[in-house]
Amino acid sequence: MAHSAFPMNAWYAAGWDLDVKRDLLPRTICGISIVLYRRFDRSIAALEDACWHRLLPLSMGRLSGDEVVCGYHGLVFNSDGRCVRMPSEDRISPNACVRAFPVVERHRLVWIWPGDSALADPALIPDMHWADDAEWAGEGSYFDLKCDYRLVLDNLMDLTHETFVHTTSIGDDAVAGTPLQANHEGRTVDLSRWMIDVEAPPFLATQLCQAHDLAEPGKVDRWQLIHFEAPATIVIDVGVAPTGSGAREGDRSKGISGRVLNTVTPQTADTCYYFFQYARCYGLDDRALSTEMKEANIRIFTEDKIILEAQQRAAVRHPDRPFVNLKIDVGSVRARRAIEQMIAAERAEDHPGGA
Amino acid sequence: MAHSAFPMNAWYAAGWDLDVKRDLLPRTICGISIVLYRRFDRSIAALEDACWHRLLPLSMGRLSGDEVVCGYHGLVFNSDGRCVRMPSEDRISPNACVRAFPVVERHRLVWIWPGDSALADPALIPDMHWADDAEWAGEGSYFDLKCDYRLVLDNLMDLTHETFVHTTSIGDDAVAGTPLQANHEGRTVDLSRWMIDVEAPPFLATQLCQAHDLAEPGKVDRWQLIHFEAPATIVIDVGVAPTGSGAREGDRSKGISGRVLNTVTPQTADTCYYFFQYARCYGLDDRALSTEMKEANIRIFTEDKIILEAQQRAAVRHPDRPFVNLKIDVGSVRARRAIEQMIAAERAEDHPGGA
Amino acid sequence: MAHSAFPMNAWYAAGWDLDVKRDLLPRTICGISIVLYRRFDRSIAALEDACWHRLLPLSMGRLSGDEVVCGYHGLVFNSDGRCVRMPSEDRISPNACVRAFPVVERHRLVWIWPGDSALADPALIPDMHWADDAEWAGEGSYFDLKCDYRLVLDNLMDLTHETFVHTTSIGDDAVAGTPLQANHEGRTVDLSRWMIDVEAPPFLATQLCQAHDLAEPGKVDRWQLIHFEAPATIVIDVGVAPTGSGAREGDRSKGISGRVLNTVTPQTADTCYYFFQYARCYGLDDRALSTEMKEANIRIFTEDKIILEAQQRAAVRHPDRPFVNLKIDVGSVRARRAIEQMIAAERAEDHPGGA
Repeated sequence: MAHSAFPMNAWYAAGWDLDVKRDLLPRTICGISIVLYRRFDRSIAALEDACWHRLLPLSMGRLSGDEVVCGYHGLVFNSDGRCVRMPSEDRISPNACVRAFPVVERHRLVWIWPGDSALADPALIPDMHWADDAEWAGEGSYFDLKCDYRLVLDNLMDLTHETFVHTTSIGDDAVAGTPLQANHEGRTVDLSRWMIDVEAPPFLATQLCQAHDLAEPGKVDRWQLIHFEAPATIVIDVGVAPTGSGAREGDRSKGISGRVLNTVTPQTADTCYYFFQYARCYGLDDRALSTEMKEANIRIFTEDKIILEAQQRAAVRHPDRPFVNLKIDVGSVRARRAIEQMIAAERAEDHPGGA
Repeated sequence: MAHSAFPMNAWYAAGWDLDVKRDLLPRTICGISIVLYRRFDRSIAALEDACWHRLLPLSMGRLSGDEVVCGYHGLVFNSDGRCVRMPSEDRISPNACVRAFPVVERHRLVWIWPGDSALADPALIPDMHWADDAEWAGEGSYFDLKCDYRLVLDNLMDLTHETFVHTTSIGDDAVAGTPLQANHEGRTVDLSRWMIDVEAPPFLATQLCQAHDLAEPGKVDRWQLIHFEAPATIVIDVGVAPTGSGAREGDRSKGISGRVLNTVTPQTADTCYYFFQYARCYGLDDRALSTEMKEANIRIFTEDKIILEAQQRAAVRHPDRPFVNLKIDVGSVRARRAIEQMIAAERAEDHPGGA
Repeated sequence: MAHSAFPMNAWYAAGWDLDVKRDLLPRTICGISIVLYRRFDRSIAALEDACWHRLLPLSMGRLSGDEVVCGYHGLVFNSDGRCVRMPSEDRISPNACVRAFPVVERHRLVWIWPGDSALADPALIPDMHWADDAEWAGEGSYFDLKCDYRLVLDNLMDLTHETFVHTTSIGDDAVAGTPLQANHEGRTVDLSRWMIDVEAPPFLATQLCQAHDLAEPGKVDRWQLIHFEAPATIVIDVGVAPTGSGAREGDRSKGISGRVLNTVTPQTADTCYYFFQYARCYGLDDRALSTEMKEANIRIFTEDKIILEAQQRAAVRHPDRPFVNLKIDVGSVRARRAIEQMIAAERAEDHPGGA
């Protein structure tokens, strides 16, 4: 079951909760065609999106109660994937099933486990609680990207790119100029960067002034605390506080902070879904601000999209040229290593004894 | 010469008679680029569509009398494929030929034999006489389909799909609910389905009322008699008559019937031309009715096109998943077997002694 | 380093001089992604268009003085390809380089040597001096073609195609009807065709009347003297003079002539750039005439483009069908042989002793 580019035994986001309706939604996850829909009770079902009979995507059929009717010959599958009706047939073969996938709705995301269902422990779902915590606000978005999902992770694990890719919004020389602390343990990698006594970048400066009613931001202490959890989730704690107000020591009361929530889902080896949200802990009732920040987020990540898809094409064009790793890549090197370990472990399970 | 997906020694439709004019028409048939045109005497020539010299499609050149002038260096080929003029050359190599293909115009279709010309017996042309019989009326159409031609045959050999794909026109529960009788012999397969005392589907109900001046159709006996002839022709005798008026016993005088004429031509292993016509034996002079029925036909077959092309993509995406056959697939199983036998026979001829 | 379709150790045109500005211009030459730009002193730099670090095309970054800043992580490369700045890194690896390519600006074209830089002798640049000679006038253009660059050479080495492809402009029966004299020596091939006492084709007839103030051209002697220099440059001396005015014997004073300058650069095995210009030695100050002739040139070569790209597709579709060579192909046969010898010589250098 192991794939060389991604672990199969993991939870991957298939969509934001609002994306899955009383309707057939096709997705490709880890190379598998999957159709999602809500049952009457609002719970979500996920079936392989290929009829057992002649492979037509079930998502081209229609929902009938909690069952899916194939759009070609009318075979009906219940939400466990079992065929419960075959027009014109006397009996239904017990083999007439499509795969059903474990699904859990959590943190406003819909998580699917494409690998061995027996191992699908909901306790392994990455922590993205800021997306549905009453103390936090924000709106999620997603992109379809034509690149290896790991390029997105590389991008987020090295924020010095902000200086060059996001020059006009969140980037400035402070990021690239400040060293990074890295820690890793098991499936997680933590990176921290503190920029002391710097100019706030425009995006955060505006937020700081609005939240604390300041005329101008003045010099600030700025932080970027990146938490990666293999295979594909990254939460970034970002913020600024007036210099000397004690943020690094733990008092953020004069400052402003947010969480950049990111999770990436491989579609195939060279395409992925990228789900993201900026969550803030102030102005919670300001829906206009949520929309404004969502739009800013989309604008900024569109700058990344252009780079990432160009990088993917370049990698395909230069198969003999591996990426070089610099000090700034410490985070992505460790993240990729954690992914590799998951893949190797799956392979060992598939072939015990090293066969 | 044998191809794994289609026999070469067979007549395939290259176009409706009206499609071939005093003009160069390119077609791809069984993987071969072919150019067709009418000679002055209205007979049709078919040549390989690649100049002997530098491969430019001859269809990019021009007709000169009954000869084709290549659009690059002016080589002239007669309608037997022999080069009869080479500007600037002293003599013409006897090898300077392109293949000419046997062509026969019959039943308003233009038939080509892409295989061994010596075997091209016009007696083997499938019977589609309803297309030019004075007792029948109708207008032909065709589609370019991005799918294996056999998917079209599967579709026609199992009309239970009408219930699910053509819900609003010719489909209803009666089709999927009624069993099928199957017979096969040599290259042909016959399937019959009689639905007794049922509602007529909208399309046929309308025709029945118009033809017999009825206020409403009432309950009917409905038939679908499918005749397949390998490799790729299917004629379906469809009709309805008021229940109890004796149609099943042979008296169709109170009813209405038509022939759905279908023939499919492989372009490549995963693309094909699909030629079809609805022929009727009433209202022969009503040209508006011909047009109306042709348009209905196109509308209905467009529903199939969407399914068939999606099914093709699904098969490519799931190379490890063969189609499963149900009872409803008895017709297509037998049809595919007849095709396989033709291909195997060709292969045996190519490699006598099993070499 | 040798490629089977083109020599690497050769000068290839990367653009007309006007195409390269204070800006990052991406080109693909002999399969290599290259970025070109002018330094402050107007000289041209050419670097591999893939950052050493993560392969992003440098052409997606920006110029900073004479250096290129990568658009992803801000690595800075000087115009020799050496990395001179890495934000966030303590030291710069001496390996941090991208390839720099020899570039020479000559005859209004920018020439690049994609192979071994040590062999890049500017004396080997093909003679295209008519493009910047004060006695000649004209304006250059170029096409992106989806075909093997050698198809363009074949086309130019056999002008009998003018009769059939350019029927309405420069083609007439005289070209295809007159034999060709061929000579070859080392990397060059010369072809000459003299058409005595013929009608001038419309394009040249107009020029002749304008240049010598004639009411009508009368019968002319017409010449086409083709000079090929491997791997990919062809200069054609074309002209007409009133019959009997001594042109063939060397006195062109009553006639009119031009040079069709052509050089082709492989992008990949099946795509290329085609640079061309019509240079004339009369009406030098008539800029409207330059524009008119450039437009005529583009119109005529668009007719070739259609043929060449169709021929490429046909060759891909018929891998088992090599081109056939006729007497008219003597020039292209010799040209291809000269190219093959360059490729074979490179291969011998790569594998001395035949290993």
